[in-house]
Amino acid sequence: MNNAHMPVTGEMSAPRASFDIHDATGAWLPNRELAERVGVKFGTPAFVYNADYIRANFAELRRRLSPTIDILYSLKANPNAAIVDCLKSCGAGAEVSSRAELHTAIRVGVPASNIIFVGPAKTRDEIGDCLRFGIFAIVAESARELEIIDELAREQGLQRPVDVMLRINPDFTTSGSGLTMSGKPRQFGIDIEQVPDLRDVMAGLPRVRVMGFHVYMGTRFLEAGPIIENTVNILDMARRLGALLDIPVEAVDVGGGFGIPYFDNESALDLETLALGINETVSRFRETCPNTRVIIELGRYLTAGSGAMLTRVHYTKESRGEVFAIADGGTNLHMAAVGVGGFAKRSFPILNLSRDGCQGLTKTTVTGPLCTPSDTLARKADLGDVAEGDVLAVLCSGAYGPSASPTGFLSHGYPNEVLVDGDELHLVRAGDDTNDIVGRYRLPDDLPLPPVDKSFSISVRLSASDAHYGGALVDGAHIMKLFGDAVTGLAAIHDGDESLLQRWEGVEFLKPARPGDFITVRARINRQSRLRRFVEVEALRTVRACDPGSSAVEKVDPPEKIASAQGLFVVPMPNRSRARKESMT
Amino acid sequence: MNNAHMPVTGEMSAPRASFDIHDATGAWLPNRELAERVGVKFGTPAFVYNADYIRANFAELRRRLSPTIDILYSLKANPNAAIVDCLKSCGAGAEVSSRAELHTAIRVGVPASNIIFVGPAKTRDEIGDCLRFGIFAIVAESARELEIIDELAREQGLQRPVDVMLRINPDFTTSGSGLTMSGKPRQFGIDIEQVPDLRDVMAGLPRVRVMGFHVYMGTRFLEAGPIIENTVNILDMARRLGALLDIPVEAVDVGGGFGIPYFDNESALDLETLALGINETVSRFRETCPNTRVIIELGRYLTAGSGAMLTRVHYTKESRGEVFAIADGGTNLHMAAVGVGGFAKRSFPILNLSRDGCQGLTKTTVTGPLCTPSDTLARKADLGDVAEGDVLAVLCSGAYGPSASPTGFLSHGYPNEVLVDGDELHLVRAGDDTNDIVGRYRLPDDLPLPPVDKSFSISVRLSASDAHYGGALVDGAHIMKLFGDAVTGLAAIHDGDESLLQRWEGVEFLKPARPGDFITVRARINRQSRLRRFVEVEALRTVRACDPGSSAVEKVDPPEKIASAQGLFVVPMPNRSRARKESMT
Repeated sequence: MNNAHMPVTGEMSAPRASFDIHDATGAWLPNRELAERVGVKFGTPAFVYNADYIRANFAELRRRLSPTIDILYSLKANPNAAIVDCLKSCGAGAEVSSRAELHTAIRVGVPASNIIFVGPAKTRDEIGDCLRFGIFAIVAESARELEIIDELAREQGLQRPVDVMLRINPDFTTSGSGLTMSGKPRQFGIDIEQVPDLRDVMAGLPRVRVMGFHVYMGTRFLEAGPIIENTVNILDMARRLGALLDIPVEAVDVGGGFGIPYFDNESALDLETLALGINETVSRFRETCPNTRVIIELGRYLTAGSGAMLTRVHYTKESRGEVFAIADGGTNLHMAAVGVGGFAKRSFPILNLSRDGCQGLTKTTVTGPLCTPSDTLARKADLGDVAEGDVLAVLCSGAYGPSASPTGFLSHGYPNEVLVDGDELHLVRAGDDTNDIVGRYRLPDDLPLPPVDKSFSISVRLSASDAHYGGALVDGAHIMKLFGDAVTGLAAIHDGDESLLQRWEGVEFLKPARPGDFITVRARINRQSRLRRFVEVEALRTVRACDPGSSAVEKVDPPEKIASAQGLFVVPMPNRSRARKESMT
Repeated sequence: MNNAHMPVTGEMSAPRASFDIHDATGAWLPNRELAERVGVKFGTPAFVYNADYIRANFAELRRRLSPTIDILYSLKANPNAAIVDCLKSCGAGAEVSSRAELHTAIRVGVPASNIIFVGPAKTRDEIGDCLRFGIFAIVAESARELEIIDELAREQGLQRPVDVMLRINPDFTTSGSGLTMSGKPRQFGIDIEQVPDLRDVMAGLPRVRVMGFHVYMGTRFLEAGPIIENTVNILDMARRLGALLDIPVEAVDVGGGFGIPYFDNESALDLETLALGINETVSRFRETCPNTRVIIELGRYLTAGSGAMLTRVHYTKESRGEVFAIADGGTNLHMAAVGVGGFAKRSFPILNLSRDGCQGLTKTTVTGPLCTPSDTLARKADLGDVAEGDVLAVLCSGAYGPSASPTGFLSHGYPNEVLVDGDELHLVRAGDDTNDIVGRYRLPDDLPLPPVDKSFSISVRLSASDAHYGGALVDGAHIMKLFGDAVTGLAAIHDGDESLLQRWEGVEFLKPARPGDFITVRARINRQSRLRRFVEVEALRTVRACDPGSSAVEKVDPPEKIASAQGLFVVPMPNRSRARKESMT
């Protein structure tokens, strides 16, 4: 496999970055060193995303498209906040479709004026948040939605009407898309034939101001022609509908649907032709509508190539002449990669990062940890002589990865997500651990003895009156008092009794504690017999006071361990009624 | 639709329970009253599971199968701890395939001697936990796995060898299954042809004791014949392999794969014929192997019929002659219900619980909240005149529901899961809220001003020295001090400064606080300007001291609000370097 090398200059004086790209698809190609660093630092399975690739890819698009066209990132493609943050810094706004996506965009600092909310089933909570944050526009998909917006605007006592774009299901359709979204009966938007009826509806809704249109024609276009044709049609339609409804057309979202190649027989969009065609179309549109904001929304195109799934081979085996590599992440984390529920019944490109040459006589079938034969990432692929411990990379995996996969299946949980930025690795979402999954369940009646990883925390601020020693240090005895409180709380929820603390061992004071610090003390049962509970306790500093004379403080992240100990407490003999209950189970 | 009525007697003197069943499939049919209670109490979308149905269904199977056959519940079908707990109480053991499943089984109290661990990609952590908990057997799927078990047993210093069953990929196959798992090249188990080679491997592994076999032939059998035939073949094979390897055959897991009908053209398994055939086969096997434990593992059969997805219609619309009902839960929560990635490209039975008659001229297409036309739960279904607010039920949804679906897609998150037990409703897993999703992301560098739902908590134990009034009551001023600490912490992490508390408003003391109580105080920013932060603060009791004279305590769940207030704090003007940094973004 030949790997090109792509020198990249990011925007805004970012340092020159470089990375390898995959010949056939143009996607980022992580290397063995990266796979090893990710494996050591965070473990597999992991999705890795390359920030430089995202920036370079965006810069290329931005450079070619007219600056008068705004680009919104569709969070559904990859909702990780770090990805949204990266694209925000490149200048992208956000197209969101759920409350969590909206909050993500707001949290990373996408200006509300660069956010639109699209979706056919918006709840009142979601619409309420849109109003509260004052986003650029809600894209309404039905007349009823306009009524609800008006109602909520009245409830919130808003001073000015809410800006709304109408999503239209047009009567024209197009070829060249992987999935057509318009022209047929659909749950999305308002049929263009029904738009005239909206005049009466709108007249009765003083708190709604319709000021634009939105059309989404389809996804995964790999030809420039149909996208340009759609843009022509949509802008034309917007102008006509604006006149029909007698409203100013302040914004038109022409959709997106730019595809990327996944397979050998696909080629990348001709961006030059595409941009030229769109720029010309928009420029012609501006002759009559000079102040309209033209928006393109893109998800897959902005992120898919930037990511790879790293999955580690735990076992290799031969079964009836076929070689299998069984890896720790499979279709549970990356359903689209094998076409299940996706657009193609084909596997994404996969490489063995641990072997230099992947050509060989052996063909390997790569499977995941599920109990179904359909959990197959690749059939008879060229991966060299795969061995236990090898890290495989599924490329083109920066969009519709874990967030679009059944990550709860067999309770394996969400994978690690890692942002690669230059030489640095950032864990931007830690994978689920056992407690993240099991801890969410609740039984109708709590268990008599929940045995695994039971913990209890208290968090307090140390005050000036807690200082005991010179230099305003808090004494160890004070920390021990907090230890005692945490263990008492643990005993309380675990055994329904404050219990008796019998012993401390290995009490260590690792760092000084000072007034102004916030301390979290966590107690955890390590081992237990019928009446005895062995616990581990640690004190973590979460906020540090900077200087006794000033009010400045600093967040300590990750929290810093300042003391620890092991203890033993003893619970009372169960009374008779309790014993009876236990004997029945 | 005709609904039969099924009187049920559970095991172990459970009260007589009754519920409606769905004629065509025999699945539980929830009613309008239940839908309304779930909606009011917890909200939709929700999966509801009927404990009485699970018990009755299990009891029926248990009654017919010979008591010498053990039934293990395959957690992959529905891993909710409350379901596992319910089946444990019926007498089922557990077949688990991941660390979280293993911990769930242990936590709800399934005896370790009734747990087996199956799966082709077991990690060292998973195997380590199997050894620590001392489960009945690890089902090894390769020779390499035997080596790893031996290695970990040595590391853990185990006194006696680890019991292991071998999963065999046999050379016989069978018809009548929805998905065949054997006879072909597979990632699962050890090809029967390779078993003779294991003798040498086993001889070198003193800490592994192979004592049985496991075969899984396929899933969704609806005919008794093939299941009986498989059982005959597997038991016969186990005896032969035992002799070949010269080991005692102490346990044989003959798989499961009992199907349930989902569609009109399917009929339920003939349980009488099936049980007779299996009982006879096992009884014949016992003539030569009287002490072997015979195990059947079942997932779907034990839970699928007990559950329904409740999804609420948010919008109805007509598009080009087709009527759509757009609901709050769709394929993101229940992928199998529409055949995406599942076994059939057909929709599960769906009913409108809010309408009495579902017959009518109108056919309705039910879609979910996703932005793809494939998010369609039913096409042109008979659901009466569907209106906004109606609750629809997708039946047969107790297995492979949310845990097997892409619940993260569009960040809508996991749904509520509710156990219906007689007249009581228990929320056995709360749906994800926005913070459950967004709170998991981390940015490479923390944000200067994270704006949404920023909160800070402290948790303390009130001590005897905090009591101030008669009757050992803690004074309000003490609570106000905790309020102040929580706000200080919030200011610290939010603005990097302890800030200045300027105002309290609406301070309310709702319940008395007493020494021994554990109190969590949570402060949250509600609204902010450049320098001012408006906060809400509340104090929650999480543990209550029962009686001043005793050490007994009780967990307060959900926590009880004892005081609340609104406050305002002011942050210092940003200094120059900070202002510069902000102006760059």
